[in-house]
Amino acid sequence: MKFDVFTQMEYVVRSPGTLILNIHALRSPNQTVISEEFGLEPYIKFEELQTLQGENRLVRFDVSADTPNVKVTYKATVDNYYEITDFGNLQETHVSELPSPVLPYLNPSRYCQSDKLYRLAHNMFGHITNPFEQVVELTNWINKNVQYLSGSTNSQTSAFDTVTEQAGVCRDFAHLGIALCRALTIPARYFTGYAYHLKPADFHACFEAYLGGKWILFDATRLVPLNGLIKIATGHDAADSAIANIFGDVTFTTMQVSCELAEDGFVPFYYIDGEFKGLSYL
Amino acid sequence: MKFDVFTQMEYVVRSPGTLILNIHALRSPNQTVISEEFGLEPYIKFEELQTLQGENRLVRFDVSADTPNVKVTYKATVDNYYEITDFGNLQETHVSELPSPVLPYLNPSRYCQSDKLYRLAHNMFGHITNPFEQVVELTNWINKNVQYLSGSTNSQTSAFDTVTEQAGVCRDFAHLGIALCRALTIPARYFTGYAYHLKPADFHACFEAYLGGKWILFDATRLVPLNGLIKIATGHDAADSAIANIFGDVTFTTMQVSCELAEDGFVPFYYIDGEFKGLSYL
Amino acid sequence: MKFDVFTQMEYVVRSPGTLILNIHALRSPNQTVISEEFGLEPYIKFEELQTLQGENRLVRFDVSADTPNVKVTYKATVDNYYEITDFGNLQETHVSELPSPVLPYLNPSRYCQSDKLYRLAHNMFGHITNPFEQVVELTNWINKNVQYLSGSTNSQTSAFDTVTEQAGVCRDFAHLGIALCRALTIPARYFTGYAYHLKPADFHACFEAYLGGKWILFDATRLVPLNGLIKIATGHDAADSAIANIFGDVTFTTMQVSCELAEDGFVPFYYIDGEFKGLSYL
Amino acid sequence: MKFDVFTQMEYVVRSPGTLILNIHALRSPNQTVISEEFGLEPYIKFEELQTLQGENRLVRFDVSADTPNVKVTYKATVDNYYEITDFGNLQETHVSELPSPVLPYLNPSRYCQSDKLYRLAHNMFGHITNPFEQVVELTNWINKNVQYLSGSTNSQTSAFDTVTEQAGVCRDFAHLGIALCRALTIPARYFTGYAYHLKPADFHACFEAYLGGKWILFDATRLVPLNGLIKIATGHDAADSAIANIFGDVTFTTMQVSCELAEDGFVPFYYIDGEFKGLSYL
Repeated sequence: MKFDVFTQMEYVVRSPGTLILNIHALRSPNQTVISEEFGLEPYIKFEELQTLQGENRLVRFDVSADTPNVKVTYKATVDNYYEITDFGNLQETHVSELPSPVLPYLNPSRYCQSDKLYRLAHNMFGHITNPFEQVVELTNWINKNVQYLSGSTNSQTSAFDTVTEQAGVCRDFAHLGIALCRALTIPARYFTGYAYHLKPADFHACFEAYLGGKWILFDATRLVPLNGLIKIATGHDAADSAIANIFGDVTFTTMQVSCELAEDGFVPFYYIDGEFKGLSYL
Repeated sequence: MKFDVFTQMEYVVRSPGTLILNIHALRSPNQTVISEEFGLEPYIKFEELQTLQGENRLVRFDVSADTPNVKVTYKATVDNYYEITDFGNLQETHVSELPSPVLPYLNPSRYCQSDKLYRLAHNMFGHITNPFEQVVELTNWINKNVQYLSGSTNSQTSAFDTVTEQAGVCRDFAHLGIALCRALTIPARYFTGYAYHLKPADFHACFEAYLGGKWILFDATRLVPLNGLIKIATGHDAADSAIANIFGDVTFTTMQVSCELAEDGFVPFYYIDGEFKGLSYL
Repeated sequence: MKFDVFTQMEYVVRSPGTLILNIHALRSPNQTVISEEFGLEPYIKFEELQTLQGENRLVRFDVSADTPNVKVTYKATVDNYYEITDFGNLQETHVSELPSPVLPYLNPSRYCQSDKLYRLAHNMFGHITNPFEQVVELTNWINKNVQYLSGSTNSQTSAFDTVTEQAGVCRDFAHLGIALCRALTIPARYFTGYAYHLKPADFHACFEAYLGGKWILFDATRLVPLNGLIKIATGHDAADSAIANIFGDVTFTTMQVSCELAEDGFVPFYYIDGEFKGLSYL
Repeated sequence: MKFDVFTQMEYVVRSPGTLILNIHALRSPNQTVISEEFGLEPYIKFEELQTLQGENRLVRFDVSADTPNVKVTYKATVDNYYEITDFGNLQETHVSELPSPVLPYLNPSRYCQSDKLYRLAHNMFGHITNPFEQVVELTNWINKNVQYLSGSTNSQTSAFDTVTEQAGVCRDFAHLGIALCRALTIPARYFTGYAYHLKPADFHACFEAYLGGKWILFDATRLVPLNGLIKIATGHDAADSAIANIFGDVTFTTMQVSCELAEDGFVPFYYIDGEFKGLSYL
């Protein structure tokens, strides 16, 4: 399905510094970037980078106090494809069957301290034998118990906090989902994207769990249809998939984000209790 | 310089499970594995894996309660090469000059929450202009203030704990060094290896900081000569560079580790206050 | 019911220091100390203190390396009285009805960070209207989910850790119970005592919740009958009710503790699901 | 010296609830409340309470959504007396010499986890033999390294956070000072008050350390003269000395606070490096 995505972000610069942005739509076999445009006002030379995994598309540029106001604009038309798989009979995947590149997503990370959540995860979800159902149930639990509350958390908040404090934003919901998955020996990774009709408009974060050989999408916030996302990046957690990394005395001031349909016929897809149909982007 | 390294580890198995070990000496242009031997008693089929970065050498195998005692043996003769660089005139490397694969080592990670240490790191070491000297001074500070105390920490202890509690083992010294470097915008990564004449014998952990285009070795414990290490792995921190990842009801019982010279002429190398000579393996 | 309680603790002294012990049975209208004996070997002058609340009985004495081995012995015969109250119709007590001395037990404390557990406590137990039942249910939850595991925690472990990590000893069970009560606006305090037939023999910790004008005893470990306790102290948490506070280079080495019946006719009392009978000492 | 103190606070009430305020000037031998007036608009019956220590003056009243806007006003004229003591020759006070009511102020508390700061405190200040100088030096260190930054912390921030994150407000400065003192075996307690010419106007928090038999005032923020404070309360930390405890869906909206001289001749008093003159209120 084709979407028009757009963002504009403004920064105030008070010292020499560097910005690394991760706002470009991912280019992948299952996500085609039909057209895109990236601009800086005033014009600054920028450099495109790829992360080691060869996927996420970073832009890096230097700023200085000579140009104290920098405006970043990105717009693209993107076609995404997804797949629905029935996991009604899914068995646990043994660690010995996981491909090597998937193994790091079992490790704890900065914001997803799965090593501290083993007993809790097993006490709550260990009795469920189907791993897809485990992840559905843990996102249900997050959705029911964690309050979506803007401003309740900050850039240091982690899953270990959220599991107890039970308030946060999409990033926190995702981190908790990832940490619980990993504690159950299900590989899980962070997902950032543009999200169709997200209100209030913002970048979105959710997560993917590795089930039956595929990265299946889950969103404990349930704020958007699962097939209304344009993927920007995946990573271990927000530490390596941030929308922006800022070095120097540079302040983010305003942002606009949008994600609109560019064609007709969109049928929103959500998980339905009792069904075992999981959605995967590539 | 050639070293004979050896380890033998025993596990008790009470359920089906999987072990992933990272004990093989790294093979690299600067570290030649002349001969090596890996064995499991009783014999179990095992699989060699490489991590995404293409470096660390993992071994994965399944265990079951049918063979409740598993003994792992690894021995190798390894020749390592290193380089000494004079950093007397080193300038700060700007983020915009860092190669893309180095950038992730600026991010906070599970055990190295550099995002919480910015002010502290700048208050303590921000006045030093030479980045090599910054890292030397922060390892000096760790060495002086953090007590090496076996059993004082556990697998959940992180740099945020150690900077205040000031006790730990080599892993904690390394995590704190890494976190402080990253807080100063110096990329840093975790390093595990066999260590010449480490007492008590054990695997060793220290860290590398990215300075002047090279990964320079630092060891805040000062327990071994910097040129007496056979590298096993590097990673963000112990979360992705653990000696062993155990899945299932499997318990580590005993371990032997050794690292002995296999030729004459070893001249131990330590950093000397006031000199700016840094050691790098590849 | 009359009990003979006994403890013997040995310390190794390497520097001048001070010990403050809180091992004397509380003297109260509902707990009669029939006979008691406190001794130090070698003899050291000691001082009896009372805490501000006028209850807990401390003993303070200086030690020095001249007497490197100090043995503390306490034995007593104590008669305790308790009361059973039916809370079948208990209503919530409003904060405005709480006596002033009870109010501090609503505050968070070192090991009971109730301020971080509000949402969790309300999500889990907020739907229960009878406060006695709330406390029964939360101790049931702790008993079911937290694993009693010696050595899994240390003197820094707090309720905020235990609610997620779900392992600990009696002290941790008590701290979590207290924190959850306070998060539900139920005053709660820490309770230490000698415990009949506790295995392995040790001092015991549990907690009291203020319900219907009385301090009602709860023990999430369920290791001993509720009427088999000889109270030593109450406090906000282990920070002000520790068995021993040690100043100086003094190490605890061995301990014996026992609590035996001194008369016949003991009928062990435990809470029974579906009944609302709460036990209170004074 | 006579001061006029004043505060007005407004609350929005959305449910039945209870407020407990601690805004009355302390009445003590060294602080005379010449006149005072406390009012609620609309009028609500309120109750005066004293804390167990017999000092802090609380006011408790119920609110309900029937009166959705509640305005609290307190004004008083207060005369405070203080004492200056020369601590040039102060020796360490042994724990065995501390009066019983002072001992609890050696314990860790919710926001002052001194048990985690022992090594750090001794590494930084253990070489100083005069305890007054120790406290001066640790407040100097806080003042130099911790950035006063409104909004950087919240009601859960504790000394363990602040010692590393090094940003906060007066409450955080006080908590860190207290925690460091206790880690050095110097009793310390939290102090709230009205503060002369504090900018921006607010209630103030600082701390007292028990030195030479007196509670000596320290303020690591250095925002106000030490003799310009009208004491409201002391306690273990903000957990038991909060300006307001709110139960129910009640929100604080606006606040005015002032503290003005009511007579001439005020000579501001600050500590001077190299002098050992400490100020104590009672």
